[in-house]
Amino acid sequence: MSRTATPAGLHRADVEEAARWLSGRVLRTPVLRSETIDRLAGARVLMKAENLQAGGSYKMRGALLAVGRLAAAGHTGVVAQSTGNHAVAVSLAARRHGLVATVVLPVDAAPTKVSRARAAGAHVVLAGTTVEERMAVARRLSAETGHPLVDAYDHPDVIAGQGSASLELIEEAARLGTPLDALVVPVGGGGGAAGACLAASGLPIDVYGVEPVGCDSLARSLAAGRRVPVEPAPTIADGLRPSCVGELPFTVLRTALRGVVRVDDEEIAAAFRLLLLELKVLTEPSGAAGLAGALSLAAGGAGGLDLAAGGAGGVDLAAGGAGGVDPAAGRAGAGAQRYPTVGVVLTGGNVEAALVATLAAEQVADLTSVEGVAA
Amino acid sequence: MSRTATPAGLHRADVEEAARWLSGRVLRTPVLRSETIDRLAGARVLMKAENLQAGGSYKMRGALLAVGRLAAAGHTGVVAQSTGNHAVAVSLAARRHGLVATVVLPVDAAPTKVSRARAAGAHVVLAGTTVEERMAVARRLSAETGHPLVDAYDHPDVIAGQGSASLELIEEAARLGTPLDALVVPVGGGGGAAGACLAASGLPIDVYGVEPVGCDSLARSLAAGRRVPVEPAPTIADGLRPSCVGELPFTVLRTALRGVVRVDDEEIAAAFRLLLLELKVLTEPSGAAGLAGALSLAAGGAGGLDLAAGGAGGVDLAAGGAGGVDPAAGRAGAGAQRYPTVGVVLTGGNVEAALVATLAAEQVADLTSVEGVAA
Repeated sequence: MSRTATPAGLHRADVEEAARWLSGRVLRTPVLRSETIDRLAGARVLMKAENLQAGGSYKMRGALLAVGRLAAAGHTGVVAQSTGNHAVAVSLAARRHGLVATVVLPVDAAPTKVSRARAAGAHVVLAGTTVEERMAVARRLSAETGHPLVDAYDHPDVIAGQGSASLELIEEAARLGTPLDALVVPVGGGGGAAGACLAASGLPIDVYGVEPVGCDSLARSLAAGRRVPVEPAPTIADGLRPSCVGELPFTVLRTALRGVVRVDDEEIAAAFRLLLLELKVLTEPSGAAGLAGALSLAAGGAGGLDLAAGGAGGVDLAAGGAGGVDPAAGRAGAGAQRYPTVGVVLTGGNVEAALVATLAAEQVADLTSVEGVAA
Repeated sequence: MSRTATPAGLHRADVEEAARWLSGRVLRTPVLRSETIDRLAGARVLMKAENLQAGGSYKMRGALLAVGRLAAAGHTGVVAQSTGNHAVAVSLAARRHGLVATVVLPVDAAPTKVSRARAAGAHVVLAGTTVEERMAVARRLSAETGHPLVDAYDHPDVIAGQGSASLELIEEAARLGTPLDALVVPVGGGGGAAGACLAASGLPIDVYGVEPVGCDSLARSLAAGRRVPVEPAPTIADGLRPSCVGELPFTVLRTALRGVVRVDDEEIAAAFRLLLLELKVLTEPSGAAGLAGALSLAAGGAGGLDLAAGGAGGVDLAAGGAGGVDPAAGRAGAGAQRYPTVGVVLTGGNVEAALVATLAAEQVADLTSVEGVAA
């Protein structure tokens, strides 16, 4: 299914330009595969390991581009707020460009994210637990210092920068002779998902977003046709709990996204363990959510909400699956599809040692049973 | 310091040929870096992530080459013994070439290694706990079936294949404009270390081996000038506990290796955690031993045995370090050196979830203090 829409004043060319500018400035992260994960998904799963990116997440891309342009424009400092990874990325980007960074994180932020922002030389302010509380403080700091605010997702450079990770994955898949049929990315404020849609626009790639159960502002917004905030439920995916999808991302996502998959903590933890023990990489729970969503689609539902008339628009990732929000009622007649090759962006890897220990300690019953099949 | 020796009938060209044959057959694993690890080492540390290799370890390289040549010669099956990774790799290589594999592992093998060999379709035999017990069973099985034994390290194809990982690292470092000054690799039977020496021969790269304390057959053999077996002490590095360095590897190592560093379980665990939390990759303890050795060299000793006359041959990895066995008395006068760029091969990542949980749970005090410096 072709995506040629270029809404919100953003185009695929913006992502291509971001990718060119970022080339040599960020790590071109590897695309990894696991036979076990392919078997579980019933598809070829190509995973872009942005958890290995400088700063530990793909947020480095958008932050470096946005801060780089502000530095070129003569600014001497920047302000940012986030649950962590965007703040870390802006701190590192500011240091690289010689700018002062002031970043606002929640009081319950992952300690590793706070210490990483501090280690990059940023002035760290802890404020509240909600995005609204952080934004109020960030706006005040921006006004006081005169330093511009670099939004974590409602920013064209951030969207284009994050999109460059998807673009690299799309290009690498094509180079390998296995072009993507679908692309699955986690959704917090929606910047990365919007960037993924732009990167895939004009190509026959269905893009899906993944939200934790109870943090599904995007799914609700797509269903309502307007941005709908939620009271974020507790989740281990600390990076995916903004109360509302961003305005600019939503303008892109409402027409370009194929659907949303909701995943619970158990599914995220299972994906985390697969990535750790089979792919041998460490993701944070938010960074594992994309794979959790892809596996949920493959397994046939799990929280997927089908908006299409009569359920005919269900999407079959592999054999026997369905589900996913389809915001485009006009495509409802397309019926079930199979995706031989699925791309997933592993967005980040900044996670506490204690949480790793907890998540790793749980039994991986499904994996053992899969290996037993071939034994 | 130039290494032009090409002993044991093996040459750099054998590694180059292995690398060419393996190109496209194994994953060209990424070379990764971490600012925190660089800071701890006081050097640029380039890490070759062979834990991401197919089969979960660099053993896939030698196994694929050796089994491929046996398949081309008309063999229909192979036999192998190892503590795990070589057995897994031979199992996968046999499946790929359509051969029958029979592999012998110790009764106390890591369960994940046993299940991975079984999942690859191999006939798995558990026998004893020592290499001698396994070899006896493997030789009998080879005689009974007529299928050749693919030794885990005393085999030219295995040495050349494992060496291709070092060769790729050396080439990538040069391509990045930061050619290696030193290369540090873990030592079990010595096949990978011998391959590293061949890959570095003719280049100004000092190659070091790393052995767990009490499993230091190579260090003792270099000191004695002949192969000396040990009663392997307990270690979390289950892949590095053969009782004796291999005959063919020793022939290479005795003239080409710059030194040996001994590391204890605590150092290996610290390296494991750094790799997990900073580099975001999962290594098995044996796979983290190379970094443990590099950090030990950088810190100035820790088990290093300096054979050079009067201690003058000590090697300074960064500021203030020494140590390492120097088997080449003729080079003793070289005195302390600095290595701006150090390569490390992360050899494998097949590890139990329970051990990951245990290792991750421990405090990373040193890391926290390092980050605190920049805060």
